[in-house]
Amino acid sequence: MPNRSVFFVSDGTGIAAETFGNSVLAQFDVQPHRIRLPFVDTVEKAVHAVERINEVERAEGKPPIVFVTLVHPDVLDIIQGARALVLDMFNSFVQPLEVAFGAKSNHRIGRFSDAAYSPQYHNRIDAINFSLMHDDGQSTRNLTEAEVILVGVSRCGKTPTSLYLAMQHGVRAANYPLIPDDFERMRLPDGLNGLRHKLFGLSITPERLSEIRTERRPNSRYAALDNCRYEVSEAEKLMRREGIRWLSSTHKSIEEIATTILQQIRPDRLEY
Amino acid sequence: MPNRSVFFVSDGTGIAAETFGNSVLAQFDVQPHRIRLPFVDTVEKAVHAVERINEVERAEGKPPIVFVTLVHPDVLDIIQGARALVLDMFNSFVQPLEVAFGAKSNHRIGRFSDAAYSPQYHNRIDAINFSLMHDDGQSTRNLTEAEVILVGVSRCGKTPTSLYLAMQHGVRAANYPLIPDDFERMRLPDGLNGLRHKLFGLSITPERLSEIRTERRPNSRYAALDNCRYEVSEAEKLMRREGIRWLSSTHKSIEEIATTILQQIRPDRLEY
Repeated sequence: MPNRSVFFVSDGTGIAAETFGNSVLAQFDVQPHRIRLPFVDTVEKAVHAVERINEVERAEGKPPIVFVTLVHPDVLDIIQGARALVLDMFNSFVQPLEVAFGAKSNHRIGRFSDAAYSPQYHNRIDAINFSLMHDDGQSTRNLTEAEVILVGVSRCGKTPTSLYLAMQHGVRAANYPLIPDDFERMRLPDGLNGLRHKLFGLSITPERLSEIRTERRPNSRYAALDNCRYEVSEAEKLMRREGIRWLSSTHKSIEEIATTILQQIRPDRLEY
Repeated sequence: MPNRSVFFVSDGTGIAAETFGNSVLAQFDVQPHRIRLPFVDTVEKAVHAVERINEVERAEGKPPIVFVTLVHPDVLDIIQGARALVLDMFNSFVQPLEVAFGAKSNHRIGRFSDAAYSPQYHNRIDAINFSLMHDDGQSTRNLTEAEVILVGVSRCGKTPTSLYLAMQHGVRAANYPLIPDDFERMRLPDGLNGLRHKLFGLSITPERLSEIRTERRPNSRYAALDNCRYEVSEAEKLMRREGIRWLSSTHKSIEEIATTILQQIRPDRLEY
């Protein structure tokens, strides 16, 4: 069903509309064309958005689907005039919440407004810097300040996961590679002594690892399937021996891996 | 209103429920305690979640608010039995979409399932590696492959923004510092020749910059307010002279900055 378009229209970044809209769309076997229209916060921009939506309606001969998170009633009114299926994501929930809170909603735009000055935001930026500094075992300085330390063989997904934990959750996540030297000694790298309670392992199937490494260094010993088999098997043996919890990243997204790690190591970070 | 709790319950990561739920909550002047319960995908886990919600209801004497994105009707049924205001985020929208698509929803869990094998996901991981390799002007190798190159003085927000663009949008975002040498020459760094159409500038108020730099290097020339005033003013002069679009990161979150940059430099990346 490619001739169907979905818009995400918001007076803020539109990230909430897009994230949620996509998870609703995932319930259907469709691959629509998706368009995010952020910062639609004036009547003029709303009129322009409606023109764009209506053009698509003409071209496709079907009403587009429009997820909206719009605070101002006048902007919302205009969007609702588009020749489209407009799904108003706020108003479905704001009214029951007004009853629950016993208070009116304040029509504030965006989840992130003035976020740049909040302690939570500050914490995210600090965590990103920390994770960058402690990527790939670069530094053991302040490693005790890490909240999570990911371990695993090279290219199993440690770096993106650490950065995601930092960026989205403000978690100081370091990562440390397990390398052939560690397998020969069958011991964790010395830099990790005393930090076991913060360790979480990532593993991966040797086949997938070999594919990923081949992209980076084709025809290398590093990427060879038998070498990947050796490294993965030794790394899993070492993690078992050291009592480190781990999961396989093979079929998991960064988001799923990060959520699982928080559940296991820092369940408190799923509350705030 | 601290004695009020909000749960985000999902059979996936719960990120969509949380992102969207938080943007609805931002419409109210409340700071509730928030708890994400991910991977609630069995009857047993649902029963456990309800116990947790009901405990909070007893402790607070008020029904908690529960945002749910749950696909399986039996799991949803159990959660709806909690002593809470349960806001079912899927069913409000799935039904009108079934009419629009002329198809039943497939009750698939999670937005990210098997995402790890999609080209989009692969692209995100590649972009993260690219952005890491091109952080802070580290390397001019393959810089022509960058889709966006952020420029600005040290500590104005280039690194977190680049990583966010890569992680969330799969955009290859490099960043390049503007330093006193560049101001003396009043020219862009040589590495950026021919790449002007990809450049986007970040600026910041000197006061905020001085605060941020002071945390890193207290009492340094680098962090001194008069030096920050000089650098920011010269950087803005240089960007104006070179015709580079820029924005001030002072009051903006990474999400807002990234969305604005995409609108300006790569509007095509807001469509997919």
